[in-house]
Amino acid sequence: MQKISGGVTVAAGFQAGGIACGIKKNGQPDLALVYSEAPAVAAGIFTTNVVQAAPVVFSKQQLRNDTAQAVILNSGNANACVPDGTATAEAMARAAADFLGIPSDAVLVASTGVIGVSLPMTKIQQTLAGRPEFISAEGGRAAAQAIMTTDTFPKEAAVEFELDGRTVHIGGMAKGSGMIHPNMATMLGVVTTDIAIDAAMLKRALRRAGDLSFNRVTVDGDTSTNDCLLILANGKAGNASLETDGPEYQLFLEGLITVCQDLARQMARDGEGATKLVEIKVTGAATESEAVTIAKSIATSNLVKTALFGEDANWGRILAAAGYSGVTFEPGRVRIYLGDLLVCENGCGLVFDEARAKRVLEQSELLITVNLGAGSAEASVWTCDLSYDYVKINGSYRT
Amino acid sequence: MQKISGGVTVAAGFQAGGIACGIKKNGQPDLALVYSEAPAVAAGIFTTNVVQAAPVVFSKQQLRNDTAQAVILNSGNANACVPDGTATAEAMARAAADFLGIPSDAVLVASTGVIGVSLPMTKIQQTLAGRPEFISAEGGRAAAQAIMTTDTFPKEAAVEFELDGRTVHIGGMAKGSGMIHPNMATMLGVVTTDIAIDAAMLKRALRRAGDLSFNRVTVDGDTSTNDCLLILANGKAGNASLETDGPEYQLFLEGLITVCQDLARQMARDGEGATKLVEIKVTGAATESEAVTIAKSIATSNLVKTALFGEDANWGRILAAAGYSGVTFEPGRVRIYLGDLLVCENGCGLVFDEARAKRVLEQSELLITVNLGAGSAEASVWTCDLSYDYVKINGSYRT
Repeated sequence: MQKISGGVTVAAGFQAGGIACGIKKNGQPDLALVYSEAPAVAAGIFTTNVVQAAPVVFSKQQLRNDTAQAVILNSGNANACVPDGTATAEAMARAAADFLGIPSDAVLVASTGVIGVSLPMTKIQQTLAGRPEFISAEGGRAAAQAIMTTDTFPKEAAVEFELDGRTVHIGGMAKGSGMIHPNMATMLGVVTTDIAIDAAMLKRALRRAGDLSFNRVTVDGDTSTNDCLLILANGKAGNASLETDGPEYQLFLEGLITVCQDLARQMARDGEGATKLVEIKVTGAATESEAVTIAKSIATSNLVKTALFGEDANWGRILAAAGYSGVTFEPGRVRIYLGDLLVCENGCGLVFDEARAKRVLEQSELLITVNLGAGSAEASVWTCDLSYDYVKINGSYRT
Repeated sequence: MQKISGGVTVAAGFQAGGIACGIKKNGQPDLALVYSEAPAVAAGIFTTNVVQAAPVVFSKQQLRNDTAQAVILNSGNANACVPDGTATAEAMARAAADFLGIPSDAVLVASTGVIGVSLPMTKIQQTLAGRPEFISAEGGRAAAQAIMTTDTFPKEAAVEFELDGRTVHIGGMAKGSGMIHPNMATMLGVVTTDIAIDAAMLKRALRRAGDLSFNRVTVDGDTSTNDCLLILANGKAGNASLETDGPEYQLFLEGLITVCQDLARQMARDGEGATKLVEIKVTGAATESEAVTIAKSIATSNLVKTALFGEDANWGRILAAAGYSGVTFEPGRVRIYLGDLLVCENGCGLVFDEARAKRVLEQSELLITVNLGAGSAEASVWTCDLSYDYVKINGSYRT
């Protein structure tokens, strides 16, 4: 298993690109297209918010036959909470299908941007009708750039590995990085792979990889109306199709988790106003789900996140946030580490080297470990600190 | 039912006061005492955090006999997550008992302040051993001041009403206003009343009033290790003791709710860095508990709270926060009002007068109503905006 550079076009038989069609007022690229030269097995994970944007509802329907050949994505408008949302999502799929010369039921749609304002569909139609040559086997990065909103850098990740003598590639792109002024709806991810795999196994792998990556990142705890993670597998690697669990499937799963976690960590690092990427690791838990629940409670605590911004060795807030997670545990058995510095033992504070704690907290990437002393399960959640800039980005009328 | 000025000493037979004993380094008052001249029926509500400070555990035990005659409270140190916590809480009760000449099993204890640092108990013992004359029937405000931490003003509320020919008083004090740098543990409330009431009925009333007030306020969503609300009822009003539900009990409950909601609203208004007091009212819900769940989800959303700070008519964030509350509802039936301005109908945005929205959002006190169109239940939650100063107060090493 080897990490390689690139994103959605590292896998054989995929093209992608990004272009500006005027949805973003600043003229930045706002339309991305990901295309597989052959029909691909496809799957998706979508927001659990009961308020779901039209592209989410539409793409779920498109995936009923477990196949797709392209994904059209736009930034700058979420196509959410508008009366013409469904019609717009359908029109986007049709525009992409006409441009690519494929049936429109093979196109998935994703949008990110303003909620409650109709998407200027004609700008997408007119742009694609001009037949611009903007997708290619080298266009992955341009696609990753075209889906950015308040992201400060494009997010790509990729791996390659050998499977029965063939080289398999998995590459992805994602965008964060919070829900954004005036009111945006946010996380999009697309992963492509040339592996040959059965639809049921692909779904299973995406679910697990999503749970271990995008579902374990929090910037502000807000789940948007548009969050989605899509995957296309076109079989160009020529391996014997994966149809059951086993070493080959586990290898693919490992690769998919690697790509998704890399993207998820980039999202946390690029969280709105973030100055630090922080991994909250809960160990010694009775079950993995309890570890996740506690880690998320800590990772979403404003008091923990402001203390991290303040580089304050504030284990009391960490312990308190674990305590109100809803999970029952014995506080008297808890140990808390900042990096490798033990600051709390048996639920009580220790006298520790403040200067050493400061050095840990000054890092741009840091690990906080909470050991519950209850069992052997563990889980990590990635988050970022809560800074003045988060307030500035999200409350900007007053800045 | 009439609101009157004052706090824990408006009821007959209560004395209180505040004094500085040196726990706070700035020399501000940090010790409060509330005393009933006669033994009182008592009850309490305590934090649901599994990490509970020693005074919480101790006071719960003291309340097993449903009686108390005094409450000793300190600010500046939470007596939480320290090995000598229980001994310190016991010593505080003993010091207050000796000072007042009552048995120490009649004293409740509450602390708020730094977590994980042992409370300098000797300072309290030495101060009280000096027999200072600091409690009186006019000392309610001094007591309210002595429990302040980052609160910018003391919080008191009181009512009086007639009950079978007698005048009954209910008065209270509370402090907020978030968990505070370096790591504090927070909400304390004490209510006193001269009504004669049975212990079971007092517990029932306190539970309901707490649910409708302190349990519906959020500053940062963090539940501390020390939160508690205590009530003492000494019967000095001379009414026939309330022992069953009925008009008299309902009148008392109304009064208690009035006092607790007044204090709770003051806490939200004085939330760390708050510039606005915001009531999130969810109407048209299937059940009250669903209305509360959705209102709390909106009231704790950083994106909603920063938008409120930004005075941004950001109904999309409000709808999205309702959507991930865990409650199922039909987005297509939702209406959202800023003040009395309808900004979202049938789950879609409306064209509205931005200037009028701005005027609503500029108010220091504002109401946001979300009508789910599902039923007739409703609930309100009080919150505040998320400002630069919240980050400054809680991340101050970097400021």
